Amino acid sequence: MTSYTERSAVTVLGLGPMGRALAGAFLDAGVRTTVWNRTPGKDRELVERGAVGARSAEEAVAASGLTVICVVNYDAADAVLRRAEVTDALKGRTVVNLTADIPERARDSAAWAAEHGIGYLDGAIMTPNTTIGTPDAVFLHSGPEELYQEHRPVLDALGGAHTHLGADIGRAAAYDIALLDIFWTAMAGYAHALAVAGAEGISARELAPFAQGIGAILPPIFAETADEVDSGRFSGADNPITSAASSMAHIVHASEAHGIDAGVMRAAEGLARRAIGRGHGQDGFIRITDVLKPR
Amino acid sequence: MTSYTERSAVTVLGLGPMGRALAGAFLDAGVRTTVWNRTPGKDRELVERGAVGARSAEEAVAASGLTVICVVNYDAADAVLRRAEVTDALKGRTVVNLTADIPERARDSAAWAAEHGIGYLDGAIMTPNTTIGTPDAVFLHSGPEELYQEHRPVLDALGGAHTHLGADIGRAAAYDIALLDIFWTAMAGYAHALAVAGAEGISARELAPFAQGIGAILPPIFAETADEVDSGRFSGADNPITSAASSMAHIVHASEAHGIDAGVMRAAEGLARRAIGRGHGQDGFIRITDVLKPR
Repeated sequence: MTSYTERSAVTVLGLGPMGRALAGAFLDAGVRTTVWNRTPGKDRELVERGAVGARSAEEAVAASGLTVICVVNYDAADAVLRRAEVTDALKGRTVVNLTADIPERARDSAAWAAEHGIGYLDGAIMTPNTTIGTPDAVFLHSGPEELYQEHRPVLDALGGAHTHLGADIGRAAAYDIALLDIFWTAMAGYAHALAVAGAEGISARELAPFAQGIGAILPPIFAETADEVDSGRFSGADNPITSAASSMAHIVHASEAHGIDAGVMRAAEGLARRAIGRGHGQDGFIRITDVLKPR
Repeated sequence: MTSYTERSAVTVLGLGPMGRALAGAFLDAGVRTTVWNRTPGKDRELVERGAVGARSAEEAVAASGLTVICVVNYDAADAVLRRAEVTDALKGRTVVNLTADIPERARDSAAWAAEHGIGYLDGAIMTPNTTIGTPDAVFLHSGPEELYQEHRPVLDALGGAHTHLGADIGRAAAYDIALLDIFWTAMAGYAHALAVAGAEGISARELAPFAQGIGAILPPIFAETADEVDSGRFSGADNPITSAASSMAHIVHASEAHGIDAGVMRAAEGLARRAIGRGHGQDGFIRITDVLKPR
């Protein structure tokens, strides 16, 4: 455990499961931690562990040079940060916004911060709150490089891997959106697969080991097909998109034969059919990345 | 490499990339291999490696006690197997159908086989043709246990892991459908994520290492949530479906702001909203497995 001098101090705004995990990791690392939550009572356990419980957001942000905020979305973050008393108290200090939302909200917040003389970094947490403070945590950051380097020692107290993606303030949110896109789509596929399997008398536990096998083959395929997308050369030699479409049609058919909604797969199959219709039937499935773009 | 006696013989019908890989693995293992394809000329390389090139499907199946067929779908398989000359030649022999299709087609083929005194096993190949003959290949089988055990020594020549899922002939196809459901849905999510990332100036190669990280967290989540589905106890404590829906809405918004089709995610979000509407908002996302089932 790294020990920090008294000068290391952080304020955490938002004490949902993730905010509490962040504050707990700062405390464990010996960082002086002030906490606040919109609805009271969420700070009790943290205060018992040594956190300072602030009575207001403005009091909280005034206690530290660095404020980390993690709430449900930017509407909630703005409701806290853009109140005049809080904005005034933040002048000359830095906010790291770890709230998840879309890139344009991060850009809008950076403009607001610049206007009020507030340092602003945007970030995204890519792993569950249980990973915070452990080597498994993954954080993405974007915004001014110098500002990031200045606060990095305190942020490192959160454990895990921190990647600064560049000065474009929207970049962390853009990565976050793209990665959650993969995650939630895959989970929707898994939930659907369990429903279809269930209708065929296969329990979730029976399917799971094989589903894990499918999960394991995805990372190398992600790497290979990324090269195809960047180079614009799509090799469908052994697995053309026509085969994928045929496979997807089987899934839709088997699903609907059991009365199971196949809307997600129907939408995915539609993209494959659109690529085939544009003459790309012999390309690999990842060609649909192209089809998705506006023409 | 295992060596087989002259009595070990197999016929491979269908010489697409997968059929050629199967025949090649049999040859490498020293199994006497007869091959045939509907359109001629596909057997040349295999014949050079020692395969017997049959002039007709009936001649091909007559050459071996075991016939393995792997074609585009069951319509294509039926067009080969259910011609009177071929059906007659198969009497008293066994067919292993590794063609991918839906469970009801496997059941229909088993009925046809029984009617004509033909042994019938159904199977699915879960890995790409490049894995055939290597330890990475994954095969699923279903049908009569004794028949499977009888032909297992020859099937083992294909390398990899073979799992017999039970006597229900549709089971391999049902697993196949469910596992491909996961695979193709995840790939659709990845392709979409690359499109969104691209619109934000992030190349596929830049996103890929983080996408691989998302891929890596899926298998343990698949295992945990399988238990929730089987037990009917859905714990959304730290990640309720309301959070998932909020995240999905961000993805739809960010995607459509760039003119990128978000149909797949819209369909997935719809399932989450349906679960919330039924009062399951505090459950985990996997609760949508329930929502998908016909009521």
